[in-house]
Amino acid sequence: MEEQELRIGLIGHNFMGKAHSQAWRNAPLYFDLPAKPVLQVVCGRSKDRVQKFANRWGWQDIETDWRRVVERDDVDVIDVATPTALHHDLVVAAAEAGKHIFCEKPFALNSREAEAMFNAAESAGVTHYLNHNYRRCPAVRLAKTLIDEGKIGRIFHWRGAYLQSWIVDPEFPLVWQLQKELAGAGPQFDLNSHSVDLARYLVGDIAQVTAMTAKFVTERPLPSDTATAFQGSTEGNAKGPVTVEDAATMVVQFENGALGSFESSRFAMGRKNYNTFEIYGSRGAIGFNLERMNELEYFSNDDSECEQGFRTILATEPKHDYIANWWPPGHTIGYEHEFTHAVVDFVEAVANGKPIEPNFSDGLACMKVLEAGLRSAQSGNHELVT
Amino acid sequence: MEEQELRIGLIGHNFMGKAHSQAWRNAPLYFDLPAKPVLQVVCGRSKDRVQKFANRWGWQDIETDWRRVVERDDVDVIDVATPTALHHDLVVAAAEAGKHIFCEKPFALNSREAEAMFNAAESAGVTHYLNHNYRRCPAVRLAKTLIDEGKIGRIFHWRGAYLQSWIVDPEFPLVWQLQKELAGAGPQFDLNSHSVDLARYLVGDIAQVTAMTAKFVTERPLPSDTATAFQGSTEGNAKGPVTVEDAATMVVQFENGALGSFESSRFAMGRKNYNTFEIYGSRGAIGFNLERMNELEYFSNDDSECEQGFRTILATEPKHDYIANWWPPGHTIGYEHEFTHAVVDFVEAVANGKPIEPNFSDGLACMKVLEAGLRSAQSGNHELVT
Amino acid sequence: MEEQELRIGLIGHNFMGKAHSQAWRNAPLYFDLPAKPVLQVVCGRSKDRVQKFANRWGWQDIETDWRRVVERDDVDVIDVATPTALHHDLVVAAAEAGKHIFCEKPFALNSREAEAMFNAAESAGVTHYLNHNYRRCPAVRLAKTLIDEGKIGRIFHWRGAYLQSWIVDPEFPLVWQLQKELAGAGPQFDLNSHSVDLARYLVGDIAQVTAMTAKFVTERPLPSDTATAFQGSTEGNAKGPVTVEDAATMVVQFENGALGSFESSRFAMGRKNYNTFEIYGSRGAIGFNLERMNELEYFSNDDSECEQGFRTILATEPKHDYIANWWPPGHTIGYEHEFTHAVVDFVEAVANGKPIEPNFSDGLACMKVLEAGLRSAQSGNHELVT
Amino acid sequence: MEEQELRIGLIGHNFMGKAHSQAWRNAPLYFDLPAKPVLQVVCGRSKDRVQKFANRWGWQDIETDWRRVVERDDVDVIDVATPTALHHDLVVAAAEAGKHIFCEKPFALNSREAEAMFNAAESAGVTHYLNHNYRRCPAVRLAKTLIDEGKIGRIFHWRGAYLQSWIVDPEFPLVWQLQKELAGAGPQFDLNSHSVDLARYLVGDIAQVTAMTAKFVTERPLPSDTATAFQGSTEGNAKGPVTVEDAATMVVQFENGALGSFESSRFAMGRKNYNTFEIYGSRGAIGFNLERMNELEYFSNDDSECEQGFRTILATEPKHDYIANWWPPGHTIGYEHEFTHAVVDFVEAVANGKPIEPNFSDGLACMKVLEAGLRSAQSGNHELVT
Repeated sequence: MEEQELRIGLIGHNFMGKAHSQAWRNAPLYFDLPAKPVLQVVCGRSKDRVQKFANRWGWQDIETDWRRVVERDDVDVIDVATPTALHHDLVVAAAEAGKHIFCEKPFALNSREAEAMFNAAESAGVTHYLNHNYRRCPAVRLAKTLIDEGKIGRIFHWRGAYLQSWIVDPEFPLVWQLQKELAGAGPQFDLNSHSVDLARYLVGDIAQVTAMTAKFVTERPLPSDTATAFQGSTEGNAKGPVTVEDAATMVVQFENGALGSFESSRFAMGRKNYNTFEIYGSRGAIGFNLERMNELEYFSNDDSECEQGFRTILATEPKHDYIANWWPPGHTIGYEHEFTHAVVDFVEAVANGKPIEPNFSDGLACMKVLEAGLRSAQSGNHELVT
Repeated sequence: MEEQELRIGLIGHNFMGKAHSQAWRNAPLYFDLPAKPVLQVVCGRSKDRVQKFANRWGWQDIETDWRRVVERDDVDVIDVATPTALHHDLVVAAAEAGKHIFCEKPFALNSREAEAMFNAAESAGVTHYLNHNYRRCPAVRLAKTLIDEGKIGRIFHWRGAYLQSWIVDPEFPLVWQLQKELAGAGPQFDLNSHSVDLARYLVGDIAQVTAMTAKFVTERPLPSDTATAFQGSTEGNAKGPVTVEDAATMVVQFENGALGSFESSRFAMGRKNYNTFEIYGSRGAIGFNLERMNELEYFSNDDSECEQGFRTILATEPKHDYIANWWPPGHTIGYEHEFTHAVVDFVEAVANGKPIEPNFSDGLACMKVLEAGLRSAQSGNHELVT
Repeated sequence: MEEQELRIGLIGHNFMGKAHSQAWRNAPLYFDLPAKPVLQVVCGRSKDRVQKFANRWGWQDIETDWRRVVERDDVDVIDVATPTALHHDLVVAAAEAGKHIFCEKPFALNSREAEAMFNAAESAGVTHYLNHNYRRCPAVRLAKTLIDEGKIGRIFHWRGAYLQSWIVDPEFPLVWQLQKELAGAGPQFDLNSHSVDLARYLVGDIAQVTAMTAKFVTERPLPSDTATAFQGSTEGNAKGPVTVEDAATMVVQFENGALGSFESSRFAMGRKNYNTFEIYGSRGAIGFNLERMNELEYFSNDDSECEQGFRTILATEPKHDYIANWWPPGHTIGYEHEFTHAVVDFVEAVANGKPIEPNFSDGLACMKVLEAGLRSAQSGNHELVT
Repeated sequence: MEEQELRIGLIGHNFMGKAHSQAWRNAPLYFDLPAKPVLQVVCGRSKDRVQKFANRWGWQDIETDWRRVVERDDVDVIDVATPTALHHDLVVAAAEAGKHIFCEKPFALNSREAEAMFNAAESAGVTHYLNHNYRRCPAVRLAKTLIDEGKIGRIFHWRGAYLQSWIVDPEFPLVWQLQKELAGAGPQFDLNSHSVDLARYLVGDIAQVTAMTAKFVTERPLPSDTATAFQGSTEGNAKGPVTVEDAATMVVQFENGALGSFESSRFAMGRKNYNTFEIYGSRGAIGFNLERMNELEYFSNDDSECEQGFRTILATEPKHDYIANWWPPGHTIGYEHEFTHAVVDFVEAVANGKPIEPNFSDGLACMKVLEAGLRSAQSGNHELVT
C-alpha cells in the first residue's frame, strides 16, 4: 500500500519559515504519522534568498509569487509564515483553492479579516489550523489535563504576561512589527494573542475587557532590508513613526466569572521570551513560564496542610503528552519541538478529516478579545467582547 | 543626662498589637535610638484579654476605652492597631490631643476620612506615620536605592500582585475584613493598599486607573468572638452577606507615563502572603517577593550581553539598610523585623521633629488611587485619580 | 502560686551572646513556658564592653571572670557562648556546680574534651543542651516528621554542604576561628559540625569516613582586638600562620547503609551562610537551604507519575512546629528564631527534668565523626568512627 | 566545486543511535559545514529492527555485523553508539581501517582498553572524538569562557553531582548497564564520567581521589530483549546479580590545589537527569543544572557589595556559543541540540584535519580518575591518579 503524502507549500522563509520547515522534516522521524509531509515548494520574494533557503531545508521547488503556490495542483497544504498583513488574502485564496491551511499567528489585521478567513475556510471545508504553538508544549498540556480532571477546581484567576525587551533601545529600527498597516497592532496582537489563546484553552471565553496601552518611543530609524524582529539593523538616518503600541495590559472577566489579567510588552528589560501564566482555582493552582518550558508549577490543596507547596513538575515523563516520542525522563526539549507537535496533530487532522484546535474559529474569537482591549484603551471604557 | 522617653499607648492587641509590641521592645535592643520607647498602656475592649496581653508583652497599664488612652498625659504616642473602622475617630482624637501617631494600614474607610485624618495631624503638628511596613524591608530599600541611583533608568512598567488564599473555603466566617462598614473594602484596601504604597514609593504617583473586581462567595457563616483573619472560627449556622470584593485587579497609568498593574485576591490558592512586584526600566529591572523577603532580583543591562541575568541578591550584607544591626551576612531576618525598622525610624522622626514616610499624606494619596479603582469597577470607565 | 524562675548566667557577649540574649527575652513572649528565664548575669573580659551589653539586653548583673558566674548561687543555668577553647573548662565547672548547661557549638576542641564534658554533665545529673540550632528550624522539623512517618522510605543518600566565603580575601585577619588552639579545627568543626548533627538527626549514625581538606591561604594579618568572624579588622602589618583547614569535604557511610557527603568551606565565593542538604530515599526526597529557611523541598514518589515534582513547602502553617506561636501563614521567620525555639525546649526540659536533644552525647558522637574526617585527611585512609 | 562529503557508518540504533542520527541530519541545516554528512549505513544485530530504524532516519544501507561496516570503503566515519563492552574492539578496528571515530561515552571498560583505543587512533592518525556532549551545551561553554577570561579567578572548589533514579524500584530489570562485564562499572562510569570530563574541562586535571560506593539492591529480574535504561521490562521470574555499584561518591584534589566532589547515583529519588555542578573561585562562582540547561548561574565578586548575587543567565543570546544558528533570544534549546553541536565541531575537525576535544586522550585521562575512585572504594585508601 502506498503511503499517503501531504504536499506542503510554504509561504515565508524567515524565522517562522525556518521553524515550520524543521517541523515538517522532524515530525515523521519521531512520530508515526498517517501521511508523509512532502516539502514541495517554498515561496519568497527574493529568488536568491528563497533558493538558498530551499537548498538548505530540502524544499523541492521555489516560487516568488504566493499566488502561484496556491494555484499549484501538486500542493495540498498552504503553510502561511508571512507578516500578518498578507494572511487574509493568502488564507482566503488558499481556502478557495481547496487547500488545507496551517497559519502562523497573529491571525489577521482585525476581526473583519479574521471573520472572512474563518468563513472562507469553513465554506471550503478544508482543515484550518492557527499556530498558537504553546498549546502543544507538554507542560501546558499537563495544565490542561489537570484542569479537565477537576484538580484545579473552579477557576478564580488567570494571571498572564508575555514580556520581551527587544525594542527598548530607541535606535532599534522600525521593523514591520512596529507598523500598524503591516502588523495590525503591537504586543497586543503579537504577544497577548498567545496569552489569550492559552487563557481561552485553559479557562474559557472572555466576556468583558478593560485595557490600557503605552507607547514609549514614538519614532524610529527605518530598517534595512534584512531587518527582523529581535535582530533589526538600520539603514541611513531617516526615521518613521511607530504606529503600534509598545505595551498593552488588560483586565478581563471570563464568562465563568473568573478574573483575569494580561500584560504584554516589548519594553520589559531582562525578559527575553517570558510567556508566563498563573491559574488559581478552588482546589489547586498552576504556574508556567516559557523560559523554563519543560516545567509546570502545580499546587494541590488535596495535599495535607503541612505538605502543601508548589511542585516543580519536570514534564519529561513518558506519560506526558508527546514526550514518549522524544527522550528519556529528564532530557528536556526546546522551543521548536512545539512546532513539530503542531505538525504531528495537523497531519493527523487532515488525514482523518477531523478539526484541530486552535483553528480559525479560535483565531476569530481571540481577535475579538484583542480588539476589545484596543477599543477600551481608546474609549476609556470597559468593553464587551462581541 | 536623662535619656529621653517616648511613652506609647497601643490601641488593639490582636495580630497587629502583637507585631507592634515586639517592635517597641526590640527596636532599642538592636538599634541606638534617640529616645527610649516605654510601653505605657495598651487598650482593648475585653479587660481580661487585654490584661493578659499586657502581662505577656510588658505593657505597664491597661485601658478598655480608647478615649481614656488618648486623654492620658503620660502618653506621647498613640499606636493605632485596630480594625479600620476605628482609625478615623481615633486618629483625629489623638491628633487633637497632640499625640504623635503610629497608625496601621489600611488607613481609613474612604478618602473623606483619610483627608480629615491627614488634616487633623497636620494641624496639630504631630508626627504621623502610616505603617506600610514593607517599605522597610531591606530588599525593598535596595530596590529604592537602585532606582534613585538611576540603575533602573526610565521606568516603563510596574507589575504588582498581593495574593492570599485564606477565604477560599466558603465556610470561612464573615470576619470584619469581609464587611464593608468595618473594612471599607476587601483586598483592594487590605492588600492593594500595600502594593500602591510600594508603587508610589518606587515608581511615582498614579494618574489614571481602570479596574475590575470579583466576588466568588456571597454569604458566609457568622464568626465567633475570637475569629480573626487567617484563623476564623464560626458560631452556629447563621450566615451573613459578604459586602466587600474577594479580588480586585487594576491597570494604571503613572504620571511619568509608566504602565502598571495591581492584582489582589484572597482566593489565590497556594499563595499565603505573596506580595510581589516587578519593575522594568530602560537600564534594568527588579523583582521582589515577600515570601522570600531577604532577596531582591536585579537585572542590569550594563552587564555585558553574554553575562546578563537576573541576580538573586541576598540583602543581608552590612551595607544593606538596617542589616548591620542584626546578624552577619546570610543570616536572614523575618516578617516582624520590618515593624521594628518602622519603630526605629518613627522614634527618630519624633525625636528630631522630622517627618517620616509613608505618612498620612501618603495614606490619603493611596486611598484616592484605591477609591478610583473601586469607582472604575462600578462605573465601567477608566477613572482619573483625584 | 509563684511562677518558677530559671536564672541564666551567660558567658560571652559577641555574636552568640546577642543571639542567646534575644532568645531568653523572646521565648516567654511568644510561648507559654513552665518557668520564666531571668537574665541574671552576663560575663565578659572587658568590664566596659560587658556592662554596655548588659545595659542593652537587660542583664541584671555583670562579671568579668567566668568562674565567678559558675560559683554564684543565684544562677541556675550556665549559657556558654564563648570561643570553643573555653568550652571544656567552663562546662565541667558548671556541671560540677550543678548548673544546667546551654552550650554553643562547636562542642569542644577534640573528642577527649567532649567525652569529659559529657561525663561531667551526666554525673552531675544536670540538663545539658548543645545548640545546633538548625534542628529547630520549622522546615527542618518538617523534614524530620516526613522521615519519621516513613514518607521518605529507606534512605539512600545524604548530600550536605555548608558553604561560606568570609575569608576569601587573603587580607582577612587571623581571627580565633583560624587558630587551631582556639578553634580545634576550621570549617570541619565550625560548619560540618552543624551538618553532621543534622545528618545524625535525620539519617542516623555514621560508621565510616573518608575526607580531604584544603588550605588556600597559609598566613594572614593579625587581627585587631574587636575582630570577629565575618567582620574582621587588622592591626599593623604582622602576620601569623593559619593553623586550621580552609575547607573540608567528607564522604561517609551511615550505619544503615546510606551514602553521605559533607562539604564545608569558607572559600565558596557567593555563598554567605549556605547550609544545605538533600536526602534521597526509596519513597521520597527532601531538600533544605538555610538561606531560604522557611522553605522545604519535598518530592513524593506517591504522587502520580505525571504530577510528581519537588514541592516548595512554605513551612509557615500553624501545624508546622513552633509556627502557631509566631505569625499567620506566609509570614516568615528569621535566623534568630531558631535560638528562641531552643530556649523554649530547653526551659521545658529543665522544668520537667527531661533530656533534650541534641545534648552532650550528641556532641561527643558528632565530634568523633569530625575527628575521623580529620584523621582520614591526614592518614589518606578511610577511617572508622570510634 | 563539488561539496565534500563525510560518509557515516553508525553502529547501534537505540537511545544513542537516535540521538546521533538526528545530529547528523540537523547539523547541516542549522550550521554551514565544510563537509556534508551522509547517512551511509547503520548497523544492528536484528535485521528487522535496524531496517526499520534506517527507513525512519534515512540511513541508506544497513548491516548486521559491525565488522562489515568497518571494512566498507564507502564509509569515512565510524560512529560508535553501542554498549560499552563493544567500544574497544570497534574503535581499534575502525582506527586500523583508517576511519575517523565519533565514540559514545563511557569510553571503555577500563583504562587498559582505553589506552589501547587511544593508541590505535593516534597511530592511525584519524580524528577521534569522545562524545561527552555536555561540553557543547551553550551554558557550559559560557562557564568555560568566564573561567578562561579569569572572571572566576583561582578556582577553589568543584562540587558536582549527576543524580538519577531509574532503578530505585527493585523490580527494575538487570539491563546491561547493571552488569560489570558489559558496562565496566555503574554510575561511576555512566554518570561520573560526564562530571569528571566537565571538571577536567573547566577546572583541570585531578591528582588524587578518595571514594565510597554503595549497592542497595543486589539482584534483579532478568530483562526482556528490548529492555533499556530508563524503560526496562522483565521476562519471567529469574533473577541475576547486580555486579556494579548503585552509587559512587568521590572527593578529589585537583593538580591546581582545588578541592572537588563528585556524586553519582541511580537511587536519587526525584532526580531524573540531574547533572549539576558548582565552581567557586577567588573572583566569582558558577552553577549549572542540566535540567535547566539553557541557564547558567554566575556570581561576580566584581559587582558592588550591595548588588552581588547569583545571576541566572539565559544562555540564548546570539553571542552565546552555537545560539546564533538556532532561534532568537529566550527561545530555548533541548537535550539533543548538544549532539548536533558535537557533529558540527566533529565535521569541522575532520575537514580541517584538526583535533577536537574531548578526544580519546581525554577519555583515557577520565578513565584513570574513575578507576582510581573504584580502587579507593575497594582499598579504603586515598588513591593517586596514575
